[in-house]
Amino acid sequence: MREVTVELGERSYPIYIGEGLIEQAGEYFTKHEISKKSPLMIVTDENVASRHLSKLEVALQGAGFQVVSTIVKPGEKSKSLSVFEDLITKALEAGLDRKSTIVALGGGVVGDLAGYVAASYMRGIKFIQVPTTILAHDSSVGGKVAVNHPLAKNIIGAFHQPELVLYDLSTLQTLPLRDVKAGLSEVIKSGLIWDAEFVDWIDNNAERLLALDEEALGYALYMGCNIKAQVVSQDERENSLRMILNLGHTIGHALEAVAGYNELLHGEAISIGMIGSARLGVKLGGSEEIYTVTKRVLSRMGLPVGLPEHLDIDAIMEAMLHDKKFSEGTMVFVVPTAIGEVIIDHSVSTELVREIVEQLKQEAV
Amino acid sequence: MREVTVELGERSYPIYIGEGLIEQAGEYFTKHEISKKSPLMIVTDENVASRHLSKLEVALQGAGFQVVSTIVKPGEKSKSLSVFEDLITKALEAGLDRKSTIVALGGGVVGDLAGYVAASYMRGIKFIQVPTTILAHDSSVGGKVAVNHPLAKNIIGAFHQPELVLYDLSTLQTLPLRDVKAGLSEVIKSGLIWDAEFVDWIDNNAERLLALDEEALGYALYMGCNIKAQVVSQDERENSLRMILNLGHTIGHALEAVAGYNELLHGEAISIGMIGSARLGVKLGGSEEIYTVTKRVLSRMGLPVGLPEHLDIDAIMEAMLHDKKFSEGTMVFVVPTAIGEVIIDHSVSTELVREIVEQLKQEAV
Repeated sequence: MREVTVELGERSYPIYIGEGLIEQAGEYFTKHEISKKSPLMIVTDENVASRHLSKLEVALQGAGFQVVSTIVKPGEKSKSLSVFEDLITKALEAGLDRKSTIVALGGGVVGDLAGYVAASYMRGIKFIQVPTTILAHDSSVGGKVAVNHPLAKNIIGAFHQPELVLYDLSTLQTLPLRDVKAGLSEVIKSGLIWDAEFVDWIDNNAERLLALDEEALGYALYMGCNIKAQVVSQDERENSLRMILNLGHTIGHALEAVAGYNELLHGEAISIGMIGSARLGVKLGGSEEIYTVTKRVLSRMGLPVGLPEHLDIDAIMEAMLHDKKFSEGTMVFVVPTAIGEVIIDHSVSTELVREIVEQLKQEAV
Repeated sequence: MREVTVELGERSYPIYIGEGLIEQAGEYFTKHEISKKSPLMIVTDENVASRHLSKLEVALQGAGFQVVSTIVKPGEKSKSLSVFEDLITKALEAGLDRKSTIVALGGGVVGDLAGYVAASYMRGIKFIQVPTTILAHDSSVGGKVAVNHPLAKNIIGAFHQPELVLYDLSTLQTLPLRDVKAGLSEVIKSGLIWDAEFVDWIDNNAERLLALDEEALGYALYMGCNIKAQVVSQDERENSLRMILNLGHTIGHALEAVAGYNELLHGEAISIGMIGSARLGVKLGGSEEIYTVTKRVLSRMGLPVGLPEHLDIDAIMEAMLHDKKFSEGTMVFVVPTAIGEVIIDHSVSTELVREIVEQLKQEAV
């Protein structure tokens, strides 16, 4: 079992990473003083429920917790204000009080949604994440929770840190290959912004990771969580440093919005976005290696590196204007200066970004 | 001009109380480094807009701020998730970014609603309150923001402290008498929980207050804000001490829910609730004076002290079960032990509360 501590003063919390942790959920929750007197609500989606929900319910009920479960539809569409409202209603009906806890069992969508419910219900109650995807390693660090608005992603949300994260690697064994690849996209991002050696390690271990080798996966997720934890500890509210975690996300979010949240998975969209950022890095004076290594690692992981032909450039540019990262009219980009190093550039021109996006159409998809 | 500082470490902020402050809003906002590059959104209601909006817009535009204004319908019904969503949409359409500020111009409804938008938009942007009612002095201290759910009041919300509060006493001169009385109800509450001398002062100055004497009103609001600021500074997240601010609110909220948010104003409902608490205080061993003084001060201010005949006791009891203050199944009440002193009693029986509520029907309304 590996453990990462996210250091945030009195809001610090541990991420436990290992095999079979769901079966031990009762002990972990007890250790962290989760209330057994107040009802606890598990939020999960239909796909995850059929595989893991009863296991978690049994583990918690066995330890004396009062468990109610709510199942939402899988997919990004559940990250809406209307599903958020449904969950608040269910929490009220189930009698959740200020000492209650909400548990997110699932991937990033469930984590963001349930986390925002926990942040808002009675102005904030306890929250625990039990991630069941690779991608969710990313959202399990740093307390960013949110739902989407038809005009922009993650625009309605809060910072709400969990009490603990229970990352059971066994749940990853049943993931579809496409989700595995997309999840590893954020792991690669962590390397690209922070640790060239780790990028090298990923490059050499791509096949083990895609084969869901437990040792390799455990290490990669530990590293991904650890890098993000270091960044978030220094800048919880994303005033400065934390922005580097958005490498590839400005373009990526726009692609998701334009393609529709179903055509491109988040990890795929930011893979293409990271190629754009790498090109930008080279354009702004960085070594050509930034581009070649970024492209090699992402390709090796089977991730898309070019723009789907039918996506409209104007629509992508328009979507970027709604992005949160445009501060006071300036266009802000996370730009690599080498593998493992990035800067935040506040003065990237719209024209240059457009040029980069157009070039993405020429990449071999 | 009077000033109260709400001490909350790096989230500390000032409340400026005085005449004609709206005309000086540009200077105050500039002094507090509110961005002039990012759009600023004023949220207000139809009634307040016709009286004060253009004054505030002119003051801010004159100082170089980019102002957009949004007007909601007056009344508690606007504190809904659907109006919240409309405001998020408007903020997006107006291009508000992470450096933008949301300004609440109005009473408690506008403050709570706009504050929750500011807390949630892009996971939290700056917030300023410009209260235009007496009651809003209460919500301007402590950062509690929320919207209602059909099943319970203030159930969806956050703690989000403003940058500053600009309390222009001139706006109070046009208030209907009923709102003046209801607003003073929370001022009386501040005295009852904290300061017997201030209760005495109110008792002796009720007529000046009802006549909107500026000196008396300025002092009463300063005291109300100041008492609340002292409480909130010690317990921002309402883990313990802050609960004393809920004197009269457990019954009061239930009355509002059952009567409908339009029949009873918040201040009227908690006036009746404080009579209930005073009776409880006497019942649990306090001096009879708790009840007589509480009733005299509230009556002198023209506030209701008994339950409207048609309200159903069962429905009131049921509504209380949805109240946030019921923690882990225990019934929690703020109980006066003397004028100016309260305790938090975690073991009040439902039967006793029912008896108190039934007695409220016998009070002269």
